[in-house]
Amino acid sequence: MSKLVKDMKEAIRLSGLKDGMTISFHHHLRNGDMVAVMVLDAICELGIKDLNVNISSIFDTHAPFIEYIRDGVITGIETDYMGGVVGRAVSEGILEKPVTFRTHGGRPSDIIRGASPIDVAFIAAPTADCMGNCTGKTGPSACGSLGYAFADAMYAGKSVVITDNLVDYPLVDYSISEEYIDYVVTVDKIGEPSGIVSGTTKITKDPVGLVIADYAARAIDASGLLVDGFSFQTGAGGASLAAAKYLKDIMIRKNVKGSYGLGGITSYMVDMLQSGCFKALYDVQCFDLGAVESIRTNPCHMEVSGAHYASPTAKSSAVDSLNVVILGATEIDTDFNVNVHTDSNGYIMGGSGGHSDTAAGAKMSIIVAPLSRARLPIVVDKVLCKSTPGNTIDVLVTQRGIAVNPQRPELAERFTAAGLPVVDIHDLKEMAEKLNGVPKKPQLGDRVVANVLYRDGSMLDTIREVPVR
Amino acid sequence: MSKLVKDMKEAIRLSGLKDGMTISFHHHLRNGDMVAVMVLDAICELGIKDLNVNISSIFDTHAPFIEYIRDGVITGIETDYMGGVVGRAVSEGILEKPVTFRTHGGRPSDIIRGASPIDVAFIAAPTADCMGNCTGKTGPSACGSLGYAFADAMYAGKSVVITDNLVDYPLVDYSISEEYIDYVVTVDKIGEPSGIVSGTTKITKDPVGLVIADYAARAIDASGLLVDGFSFQTGAGGASLAAAKYLKDIMIRKNVKGSYGLGGITSYMVDMLQSGCFKALYDVQCFDLGAVESIRTNPCHMEVSGAHYASPTAKSSAVDSLNVVILGATEIDTDFNVNVHTDSNGYIMGGSGGHSDTAAGAKMSIIVAPLSRARLPIVVDKVLCKSTPGNTIDVLVTQRGIAVNPQRPELAERFTAAGLPVVDIHDLKEMAEKLNGVPKKPQLGDRVVANVLYRDGSMLDTIREVPVR
Repeated sequence: MSKLVKDMKEAIRLSGLKDGMTISFHHHLRNGDMVAVMVLDAICELGIKDLNVNISSIFDTHAPFIEYIRDGVITGIETDYMGGVVGRAVSEGILEKPVTFRTHGGRPSDIIRGASPIDVAFIAAPTADCMGNCTGKTGPSACGSLGYAFADAMYAGKSVVITDNLVDYPLVDYSISEEYIDYVVTVDKIGEPSGIVSGTTKITKDPVGLVIADYAARAIDASGLLVDGFSFQTGAGGASLAAAKYLKDIMIRKNVKGSYGLGGITSYMVDMLQSGCFKALYDVQCFDLGAVESIRTNPCHMEVSGAHYASPTAKSSAVDSLNVVILGATEIDTDFNVNVHTDSNGYIMGGSGGHSDTAAGAKMSIIVAPLSRARLPIVVDKVLCKSTPGNTIDVLVTQRGIAVNPQRPELAERFTAAGLPVVDIHDLKEMAEKLNGVPKKPQLGDRVVANVLYRDGSMLDTIREVPVR
Repeated sequence: MSKLVKDMKEAIRLSGLKDGMTISFHHHLRNGDMVAVMVLDAICELGIKDLNVNISSIFDTHAPFIEYIRDGVITGIETDYMGGVVGRAVSEGILEKPVTFRTHGGRPSDIIRGASPIDVAFIAAPTADCMGNCTGKTGPSACGSLGYAFADAMYAGKSVVITDNLVDYPLVDYSISEEYIDYVVTVDKIGEPSGIVSGTTKITKDPVGLVIADYAARAIDASGLLVDGFSFQTGAGGASLAAAKYLKDIMIRKNVKGSYGLGGITSYMVDMLQSGCFKALYDVQCFDLGAVESIRTNPCHMEVSGAHYASPTAKSSAVDSLNVVILGATEIDTDFNVNVHTDSNGYIMGGSGGHSDTAAGAKMSIIVAPLSRARLPIVVDKVLCKSTPGNTIDVLVTQRGIAVNPQRPELAERFTAAGLPVVDIHDLKEMAEKLNGVPKKPQLGDRVVANVLYRDGSMLDTIREVPVR
């Protein structure tokens, strides 16, 4: 008995895929992913069209999606993140139907509760056996965790595993079980290793970034949360990583024994685990080779599913017990609402990912950002897109001071007592505007090109068309 | 945030349990389980009654169930196995509603597809954290795998974890995730270690058993299945274990590199893993301390859920790829139907467990049994209860010869060519009857006390009342 089928087209035929259905992909191969386009090529050759594509993130490697939208193969997109290339096309109105943006926790939640059913899931698997047991930990295209693919595999009508590393049955250290898999397809190559994970994620060397990182680490130290049992998530941006590095030094110096590091995991978090700052890492996605190596070899570095990571409808998820998260922003407004979906011209170039999930769960959520970016103030009156509600954001750290959400006066007191430069968020806006002037708001069209759903499935905001000049 | 509640009664109250509902338990603590009775005690004190109890197996430690049936607290039982103490009471008609017997694969299948909904699952957990992440691998009541508890935890309306070993959040090497757990209760003791697992499971020293084991191992050798990639399951009975021991010797001598050992796992299977006979163990239940130690420390010894083990409605399960299984029987008839539910007097004293699941999945299923047991021939015209259909049983090995199902003439040829004593199953019956006489059939009542469901949910047989004399 075997679920191996001869090729991709055979798997698609057997899956029963028809016009108008929903297919899904995960994004663990990141900008190295070759599977989504490969599947769409085969679908196109089979003449199937009008598909809704639910993909956990879209990177620039998915640029051929644009052609498939033009040709009517893709007529709907649901995702948690959209890179600039496809984002620009969507912002300029290429899709008739608005894109649905979810969060990394909201996506599995909606799949599991039946709010966003998937007909056929295509699971890129760095290693698999002939019955569909699969993992991301080994193989030439190893990506580490397959966290975001669990809900797709478990709840899709049909699930197809695509691998370039077929091993004898049974795969010993499987992530996703054969229970959920219908067909297995082997291909020459599922991903470009250089695009899957960076060799090493680099911390910033920019002096402004280092000041921000230092403030952020000291703010965590001053918050009262940095005690035994401390849990932490940080992004893969340069300043966030530098903050993790400074935080590690403080934890070691103060002998703080944390509980777990969470999220997309980098070598810096692995380093914190190995240094005894945490007893465990809960990993939904690996960002670099060090993280992949660690999840493969260290039993304290555990893979978690997207639902275990952040689903708001799970009975609990790991974000619910999170102490501190450090996040980025393209804009933040004076009500602390954060935009991570669009750039200052209104073009889509990102998405929530786990941003609003972790902000909602963490006891303290910190935005790190420079006062201005490309001569544009980071603080605005009203964000172009509300990606994360201001009532879940506690602190904004810039190189010119730390603004604390008025909801959290005790944090402002603690930071001040620790000698940190606490300022009003309006003052940060003014400082930046004095330096760089008040930016002009982009002129957006009336047409809605994307709906931004909050993690609970409710509508948080809409993104409007950018008129093509 | 924490899901810890003050005591069992509080957890039951919060779960919303009401008269007429279904509660569930798993049986990994085996005859040492203290949790099922502890929960029923609390339920009784709360005055809740008319409950349907879905428990993966019932042991003699669950004797107090009898009192709870008399008192109307328990009015229905669904299980995969029932030991002699509760079995006798049920056979004598204590329950008005017939018991529903399922298989270890059919139970999670029916839970997952909604055919046997559970209102509140009570999960005995040897180690847990305050959010409900839990495992059986560590703690004073360690039992190893929690395989049969996965479907309960995932699909019950409410899931309560009961532990005597609460650890700091997060439990690193969890089996069942907090995603599925509503409440956590700590108690002094969830189980009696001596009843949970045996210190060491012993192979038989009985000369008859050793002959049977030798024949069984040689039959596997002769079957053509003992080649690289070979997969195997065996029970924990003395002759089955001796067969595993002999098989190991053959595999090492012939340098056969098997793929996986499956099932309830004993130290003998661990020994085969460590000797290189298999590359992996897939473990749904640990039978002894050696197995518990191995699943805790050896990454090639993997825990699998009941559905991954044997669900007939999963897209595939591990039994589907099984080469050979060795099983026991209380009776086998000349059509190779096997009874593992009742004794020769018709009293319930067992159940299918994984018997019919593995028989259906394996390329060759072998029954090992002595020609007669307590002066009763093992082969009968018609089994009192059809636990496993004869068309899934290939071979019967006794000390007086090997009977092969006529469906599998190629096996009979191979065994004969290898010098094994192949005999007709009718001849085995006659031999035994010559020695011991033809046994009298027990007189059973008309009332049905149990329905035996096959793994796919269809009705396989019924068990009738034993009249009380």
